[in-house]
Amino acid sequence: MSRYFSEAYRRLVPYVPGEQPKDMRYIKLNTNESPFPPFASVVEAAKEAAEHGELYSDPECLSIRRALAERYGVDTAEVLATNGSDEALNFAFMAYCSKDRPAAFPDVTYGFYPVFAELHGIPYREIPLKDDFSVDPGDYTGTDETLFLANPNAPTGIALPLSTIREIVASNPDRVVVVDEAYVDFGAESAVPLIREFDNLLVIGTFSKSRSLAGARLGFAFGNRELIRDLDTLRNSTNPYNVNRMTMAAGVASLAADEINRERCAVVAKNRDDCAAKLREMGFELTASKANFLFARHPAVSGEDLYLGLRKRGILVRHWNRGRIADWNRITVGTAEQMDALCAAVRGILDETNEKGGPREVL
Amino acid sequence: MSRYFSEAYRRLVPYVPGEQPKDMRYIKLNTNESPFPPFASVVEAAKEAAEHGELYSDPECLSIRRALAERYGVDTAEVLATNGSDEALNFAFMAYCSKDRPAAFPDVTYGFYPVFAELHGIPYREIPLKDDFSVDPGDYTGTDETLFLANPNAPTGIALPLSTIREIVASNPDRVVVVDEAYVDFGAESAVPLIREFDNLLVIGTFSKSRSLAGARLGFAFGNRELIRDLDTLRNSTNPYNVNRMTMAAGVASLAADEINRERCAVVAKNRDDCAAKLREMGFELTASKANFLFARHPAVSGEDLYLGLRKRGILVRHWNRGRIADWNRITVGTAEQMDALCAAVRGILDETNEKGGPREVL
Repeated sequence: MSRYFSEAYRRLVPYVPGEQPKDMRYIKLNTNESPFPPFASVVEAAKEAAEHGELYSDPECLSIRRALAERYGVDTAEVLATNGSDEALNFAFMAYCSKDRPAAFPDVTYGFYPVFAELHGIPYREIPLKDDFSVDPGDYTGTDETLFLANPNAPTGIALPLSTIREIVASNPDRVVVVDEAYVDFGAESAVPLIREFDNLLVIGTFSKSRSLAGARLGFAFGNRELIRDLDTLRNSTNPYNVNRMTMAAGVASLAADEINRERCAVVAKNRDDCAAKLREMGFELTASKANFLFARHPAVSGEDLYLGLRKRGILVRHWNRGRIADWNRITVGTAEQMDALCAAVRGILDETNEKGGPREVL
Repeated sequence: MSRYFSEAYRRLVPYVPGEQPKDMRYIKLNTNESPFPPFASVVEAAKEAAEHGELYSDPECLSIRRALAERYGVDTAEVLATNGSDEALNFAFMAYCSKDRPAAFPDVTYGFYPVFAELHGIPYREIPLKDDFSVDPGDYTGTDETLFLANPNAPTGIALPLSTIREIVASNPDRVVVVDEAYVDFGAESAVPLIREFDNLLVIGTFSKSRSLAGARLGFAFGNRELIRDLDTLRNSTNPYNVNRMTMAAGVASLAADEINRERCAVVAKNRDDCAAKLREMGFELTASKANFLFARHPAVSGEDLYLGLRKRGILVRHWNRGRIADWNRITVGTAEQMDALCAAVRGILDETNEKGGPREVL
């Protein structure tokens, strides 16, 4: 860092995204991307938008906000469009937290939440998940903190029912509850229908996972119009042209094909459940994931050894060498073929481990 | 705004971008876009990138950083890629200003600088330009502030020579000097060659003006590697996938055709100077613009009346109803045909004004 760098940020530890390997071709099951490419109509829309690339994108993002509003049955004024959902999360931390208004979120969740809090000098509390990695709703009722809940949670994939989200939101009328639904389309219930009932609920979503557009960077937030106006004030004071023309057009085209998107999500959910069954047969312990990934550990092989063994076999999964999740791996769900390759590789690793002298001691 | 909105941002007055009209087709000379569409190779590159839109973009932005490094003769580690240059400016305000380290910039310049300062609670000083709208270099030497200088300046178009930039940077060794070169390619001198000489110089650029990619949102910053590392820490703590795949590919393809881009810039510069001569003949006062816009006022018609008269005639220019620039308009330079249409419309307005009873009093 330079000698000019502000005191406020000198101790920042940035978020570390999953590897985007350039050295060889892996089966990439480490960043929860979709195994399906964007539709031809989406590619075509992006191309047509690029042809007018000399003109600024619409700073109001009306086309994509209208399409999202229609798809989710809300008003355009209840939708914000962002450069990926990380931007929406960043604005939410800025808007609804401060030194006097701390944030709170599970101890095991999206690793960017504590980074946003540190970035803005916001105190935060990490609420331990239960031993089975589930959220205890009681921990989130009547708190004095702005809450961030990924639903389904990452990297566990465990989802809260809508009734529980409702209870949590209702019990914190003086604080905003942010529900991060990056993975909701693979089997959980969306809280968007609650935004008119509660003026303190912000729901954040993304085109990165269920809509095959991680590379386009398109996120969104739903909330009552006052909340959206707050976030829009920050957007217009930060980067008013935050969403480019090609991404906006791709997003609109993707929503026009949302029926097929939902079928694709159902395929991923089936592949997830099939793969989970196979892994269980091999002795894995798994969380009940409703997302497009599995979270798994095996009594005979450490999380790191499984991660490295898979890597050696050309398969990337995500491993965090951290606290109580160090023995686990998060495995993105891809095509049936990719999941078969994963299972075969896992079997190879388990066989090797057995040859080396039986199961290791589990902590 | 909601009752939850943070005290820190309740009084923010966001930046107001130029109109992006949807009601009718205007000759759009209000947001300094290029009159040329992106090259076919750029559109094709964006399309190919969209075909892999399901995969995250490279969080290191290596392809575009390498291409920029090669084009400008610096190292990849001396380049940052951003979602438009506004994002780079925002990071620069965060990194190099604070409550104890105020910002300073001209009183007439890019209207986003005070917004960034307000956003981050940074005190700032607006240094009055001279009466002819030129910068007095003496105002910027040996200050205790982080300096932001658009070169050429906007909306005046007036450029400082490289020797003056060098003096200013050399005279402020304990503060970062940010040179915003959004418009440099139309006739000013870039300060990029100075980044190895001075560890306190940050040069910011964009693909929006000279490279026909305003709609793609691609900005960049050059500085020594420690400065770039500072900004990258902020980027990775805010939005590590800040530049999407299509934009990155479009930028690389655009740089591959940079020779033709420079020819296009020369055409715009010629159209600018031709149009300026015609406006002078009609009695306009103009600054010596080195950018892709003109800044002009007429003794017989107010800035607002000219703006409204042009709008009525289907031509959008940019007018600020503010202080000493209220009598001026900023006119983006487009094609020769567009400039002819502008001149004809201006003539019509002046004729109407004369019919109504001669020139108004100028302040």
